[in-house]
Amino acid sequence: MATQGQVITCKAAVAYEPNKPLVIEDVQVAPPQAGEVRIKILFTALCHTDAYTWSGKDPEGLFPCILAECRECKFCKSGKTNLCGKVRSATGVGVMMNDRKSRFSVNGKPIYHFMGTSTFSQYTVVHDVSVAKIDPQAPLEKVCLLGCGVPTGLGAVWNTAKVEPGSNVAIFGLGTVGLAVAEGAKTAGATRIIGIDIDSKKYETAKKFGVNEFVNPKDHQKPIQEVIVDLTDGGVDYSFECIGNVSVMRAALECCHKGWGTSVIVGVAASGQEISTRPFQLVTGRVWKGTAFGGFKSRTQVPWLVEKYMNKEIKVDEYITHNMTLGEINKAFDLLHEGTCLRCVLSTSD
Amino acid sequence: MATQGQVITCKAAVAYEPNKPLVIEDVQVAPPQAGEVRIKILFTALCHTDAYTWSGKDPEGLFPCILAECRECKFCKSGKTNLCGKVRSATGVGVMMNDRKSRFSVNGKPIYHFMGTSTFSQYTVVHDVSVAKIDPQAPLEKVCLLGCGVPTGLGAVWNTAKVEPGSNVAIFGLGTVGLAVAEGAKTAGATRIIGIDIDSKKYETAKKFGVNEFVNPKDHQKPIQEVIVDLTDGGVDYSFECIGNVSVMRAALECCHKGWGTSVIVGVAASGQEISTRPFQLVTGRVWKGTAFGGFKSRTQVPWLVEKYMNKEIKVDEYITHNMTLGEINKAFDLLHEGTCLRCVLSTSD
Repeated sequence: MATQGQVITCKAAVAYEPNKPLVIEDVQVAPPQAGEVRIKILFTALCHTDAYTWSGKDPEGLFPCILAECRECKFCKSGKTNLCGKVRSATGVGVMMNDRKSRFSVNGKPIYHFMGTSTFSQYTVVHDVSVAKIDPQAPLEKVCLLGCGVPTGLGAVWNTAKVEPGSNVAIFGLGTVGLAVAEGAKTAGATRIIGIDIDSKKYETAKKFGVNEFVNPKDHQKPIQEVIVDLTDGGVDYSFECIGNVSVMRAALECCHKGWGTSVIVGVAASGQEISTRPFQLVTGRVWKGTAFGGFKSRTQVPWLVEKYMNKEIKVDEYITHNMTLGEINKAFDLLHEGTCLRCVLSTSD
Repeated sequence: MATQGQVITCKAAVAYEPNKPLVIEDVQVAPPQAGEVRIKILFTALCHTDAYTWSGKDPEGLFPCILAECRECKFCKSGKTNLCGKVRSATGVGVMMNDRKSRFSVNGKPIYHFMGTSTFSQYTVVHDVSVAKIDPQAPLEKVCLLGCGVPTGLGAVWNTAKVEPGSNVAIFGLGTVGLAVAEGAKTAGATRIIGIDIDSKKYETAKKFGVNEFVNPKDHQKPIQEVIVDLTDGGVDYSFECIGNVSVMRAALECCHKGWGTSVIVGVAASGQEISTRPFQLVTGRVWKGTAFGGFKSRTQVPWLVEKYMNKEIKVDEYITHNMTLGEINKAFDLLHEGTCLRCVLSTSD
């Protein structure tokens, strides 16, 4: 409580310019205002959306990766979506709702918030609607993964696609999100779980998450959608795009079975890029959907996911291939781009 | 029974070349083979898909407008679609399954079947799986409309979108299919039913089918999707494209509400044309679907639709703006293109 109402000075990784190395700085974190919480960050993990925003290619309307859940707005009350409208106007532009200012500064100069969370710092300030209370026994160096890619993959299967037992599933891209889709599909009772990746080495790891067939598009002359349609007597029941490539999104739709196949876009495409297909694909019964954070409501369902992890019903540890410190964040981003890293957890302690 | 096993010579409208007037010819209709039925046609109605195929712009995979329902194939058994695979390989190329030949000829030269039905003739031969038995009391000069556009519109709402009471709905294109969507939405309990058409005169008729707001895109500078989003506090719950224009299909998707809005493609686009949008539209919760014959199973559900008409639960008479004879078919097509005709029913009697 000694810091209550006081500015805290701590270490944080600051992105001053797109694509330039992050700088570990002493930042000043202002006290929280009404409806805000200041949080000590112990562990955080990197994902490709972090890397992507940092690259400067962020599309205009990028949503918060950790979603809010105010339980009061039109969205939260609808029962149909996990997107919440309450703090979006602020988190979209890197400030807090109360005064539309940042709580971070370096030598008096404001530093903007990222996606309503800003976790590459020893302390952060977030809106209260963005905070979930989880089991205090949960190991934070593991469950920090339950704020991003792992729930995104699981929820894409459970909430967005609603995969039924006996289904055939195609997963494009076997990174963390694709592997979480595989695990979600396996627990949902899918029979054939086909992993598709241009790196055949990924199949070995993917088997542990439920993938039981593998296709490398580079091994085929035909478009990958035709390969999958041939392999599955007409197409898969469900497909998931976990890369963020608009051409692959089209392939994922078109490898679905006529009459009922559903394709879910999970990956985030670069700004300005568009998906396209012949409308006949939809008129003959395919459905095109997308998902953000797997459709999970953050305050309500992240604690539930933590419980499932504690009960050994979902994997988390298996996605963590590297552990580093906040000071090594640039090296961690390099690893993420190399493709051998699934998730790197950063400790914020010195 | 006098004609059983015999060739019947009768009048039919034959399309020899794209866009050239149809020719009323004496055609020979061969007796049905195993699994086939020869039918006397008393009344038939024209639709834009007829006109469209006739124009020569038919896309490669055009489906039968009156769908088959074999109850045996993977599709029929799935419970998830009304598309049937059994006779598709034949109807797609204008022949019958048994011998992959046509039952129509003029002076010994074969004339191909159209969409598995070929109803612009006094007699036709169809696959048995394409025939539904309806109430013998039903007036054929009315219920002939229940084989095409009217069920397509109703079913797009009831089966494909599953519109709930209290929903906001946008309908692009107020022809017969769009009006049937409006009626479907009204009976489903939709609150706001917004009709969108570049011909403002259509609003008066549309009111009778349930449309209670009207927008003419020509009256606005902004893209029509923005107009609808502004009008509905964030977008509609459901939208329907009933034109066959790929730009309008995009607008229909993008005027849907973030988080849950569902857009259904009902219109048939020209061959080679593609739909496109930013994937962000789907990732933030919109769903893109399509429908063929409104998802109705022809053998099972057309008789049910006839019953609903007989019980005055659905409109049919109100779509019929013109009555003509088969001999006047070219004039009837001209009327269809002029836009004042909803449906023209042709009598095949001389």
